[in-house]
Amino acid sequence: MSHPRSPLATPFPALPPIAGVRLATVRAGYKPWERDDLTLVRLDEGTSVAGVTTRSRCPSPEVEWCRAALTLGRARALVVNAGNSNAFTGARGRAAVEAVAARAAQGLGCQPSDVFVASTGVIGVPLPIATAEAGVSAALAAPEADWAAAAAAISTTDTFPKGAAATAMIGDTRVTVVGIIKGSGMIAPDMATMLGFLFTDAAVAPALLQAMLDRANARSFACITVDGDTSTSDTVLAFATGAAGHTPLDSADAAGADALAAAIEQVCLDLAHLVVRDGEGATKFIAVSVTGAESDGSARRIGLSIANSPLVKTAIAGEDANWGRVVMAVGKAGEPAERDRLAIRFGDTQVAAEGVAVEGYDEAPVAAHLRGSDIRIGVDLGLGEGRATVWTCDLTHGYISINGDYRS
Amino acid sequence: MSHPRSPLATPFPALPPIAGVRLATVRAGYKPWERDDLTLVRLDEGTSVAGVTTRSRCPSPEVEWCRAALTLGRARALVVNAGNSNAFTGARGRAAVEAVAARAAQGLGCQPSDVFVASTGVIGVPLPIATAEAGVSAALAAPEADWAAAAAAISTTDTFPKGAAATAMIGDTRVTVVGIIKGSGMIAPDMATMLGFLFTDAAVAPALLQAMLDRANARSFACITVDGDTSTSDTVLAFATGAAGHTPLDSADAAGADALAAAIEQVCLDLAHLVVRDGEGATKFIAVSVTGAESDGSARRIGLSIANSPLVKTAIAGEDANWGRVVMAVGKAGEPAERDRLAIRFGDTQVAAEGVAVEGYDEAPVAAHLRGSDIRIGVDLGLGEGRATVWTCDLTHGYISINGDYRS
Repeated sequence: MSHPRSPLATPFPALPPIAGVRLATVRAGYKPWERDDLTLVRLDEGTSVAGVTTRSRCPSPEVEWCRAALTLGRARALVVNAGNSNAFTGARGRAAVEAVAARAAQGLGCQPSDVFVASTGVIGVPLPIATAEAGVSAALAAPEADWAAAAAAISTTDTFPKGAAATAMIGDTRVTVVGIIKGSGMIAPDMATMLGFLFTDAAVAPALLQAMLDRANARSFACITVDGDTSTSDTVLAFATGAAGHTPLDSADAAGADALAAAIEQVCLDLAHLVVRDGEGATKFIAVSVTGAESDGSARRIGLSIANSPLVKTAIAGEDANWGRVVMAVGKAGEPAERDRLAIRFGDTQVAAEGVAVEGYDEAPVAAHLRGSDIRIGVDLGLGEGRATVWTCDLTHGYISINGDYRS
Repeated sequence: MSHPRSPLATPFPALPPIAGVRLATVRAGYKPWERDDLTLVRLDEGTSVAGVTTRSRCPSPEVEWCRAALTLGRARALVVNAGNSNAFTGARGRAAVEAVAARAAQGLGCQPSDVFVASTGVIGVPLPIATAEAGVSAALAAPEADWAAAAAAISTTDTFPKGAAATAMIGDTRVTVVGIIKGSGMIAPDMATMLGFLFTDAAVAPALLQAMLDRANARSFACITVDGDTSTSDTVLAFATGAAGHTPLDSADAAGADALAAAIEQVCLDLAHLVVRDGEGATKFIAVSVTGAESDGSARRIGLSIANSPLVKTAIAGEDANWGRVVMAVGKAGEPAERDRLAIRFGDTQVAAEGVAVEGYDEAPVAAHLRGSDIRIGVDLGLGEGRATVWTCDLTHGYISINGDYRS
């Protein structure tokens, strides 16, 4: 965490332990740094798993490994390496993932396919196998760690650790969902985020857990963007240990399924927002709400066109109510839009309606809103009932400094 | 031109007059500045016209006016206003365009539909009708101006005036194509550029001129990007006066048609490159060449994914041979790509092949190449014969300063 802490950072919350989940972190030494960079999560037998992974056509071997393991629906361990993404490393990278899974499986007495592996960091350098194997062995012997330690150990360029929790009632049983995530750049929609992990003591069949995660992902990680760039490693996994002891959920109609789905979605949304709050160079958290679109999907695409526009993002950085740039971004989205029905709000103030500026609108509340750090942009298309909200951050000198002011 | 001249600027070339084209520039006063901001181009009777306009769903009334006028295929005048784009101004904006065309038509004794109008500048403020009408009247009485004056008068945030020329032989007749253009931000593919105008003394039927311009546009303006943003006003128009006196060209098979098409394409390409060289904050001119794609269209989309990636653009700004970010941008393009066939070059040095880094490649020529200002990135997908080259610039603190460090 070599960059200054984001001004939008929030304190790491108090997160309860999850029965059936045991955390450990160690310093494998993927980089010459004084911090833990390998996280091992042990999961009780009977743990279900679901996941979403990057849509990149050039995924890391870890992503391919997780996709294959997800087809089995069960998990006993998760290993997360920070500092080296192992992406674009060919056969040597694949061998490294297999070695990590084998070492963990050996230690836990399970199948390698029960071990999920995720790595994050530089692209193109194979994960050093001996380093990784020694790290896993050390983690197997390490004392139990807490969520804060795990959230820190999975981080790379993050400037603060990120976690969230929610609870749900399944019958008379209270279950808990905890999530941790890392990511601050190379964040874009149409995939997960960088690396996010959810854990619950609920008992839920893998297919149902997958459906819940897919739905939550569509409304959270798929609706955030920092720079429109998509990592080769993005992975979100959800693990359900079943240790809470209620009757396992196996269909969306089961009592309590809606409550669990809502808790998972809430944790995903909280984690997604935390990633935006740690957007590289971010000084403003921006929510773009689109209404009146022809469909929800169209609303989301228009929202992302606005949220990805460098001109909109720099305007917000400059605290400039430049709604013309919002019009531009609506126009370029390639979605149904009629100029003369378009209305735009900053905060609670309508600044344009029916395709023209609102004459004499009060600039004072707009300026006050833009001076804050939580910015709301509203766009109504006046065409239909489609709606979506997407989240992004502003584009500042900080982003350029983090990504351009050095040679790797 | 309030920003420092781009370090990638080139001197304005010596451009010959075009028979049948008369230029004038005046200060209408769209902003409180000491410079000409209205350009009037008079065109001899019999001038053909073709054009491409923005794909924005929220186009300016000028764009709508030009689209309607283009259906007639003839032109007698062009009026370009700088400092106010008149976009998103509703009925008042439409009335302003009609007033400009009417005043010019009255002065020239032609139909309003023979007058093309383009405006560039702030969005959302109606073009002041009295100011515009007075400006057109003044321009009708003004002395003849040269290409440099016109290129400067159509500019807004440009840091240098832009023009190019080429010649072609049609039978025994040498014809000339001259172009001027303005644009430095809000530049993206899938449309023209901001405002570009080509003039030739060749005699060519409107439909054939349109075909030549469409083809040239697809290989030039549609292949550049500064920030992925698309203006509401983008327009490229080509005018052919026919004053060279050769037998008019009316089919692509006519002798000389290929030569004229090549000259038009060369001018479009030169102008497109000049826009990239004036990209807001640009310090590097970047050519991204994609080969081995499944189709030319796929190659272009992958090239634009690379060229629009903030992480790639900041890496080049930092003179960092970060080919992992190129892999990322290939992966996110949504086009056919196979990680293990991918090869990447910086300059003339292959840094990755068959999905892994080239072991021990010589970093010295790569570093030397990246220290220069003309950067070449090569990507071979190893899948087919599709190829494309796109052009962009780096993303620097200058872009943030120009677009974010102020309130409008």
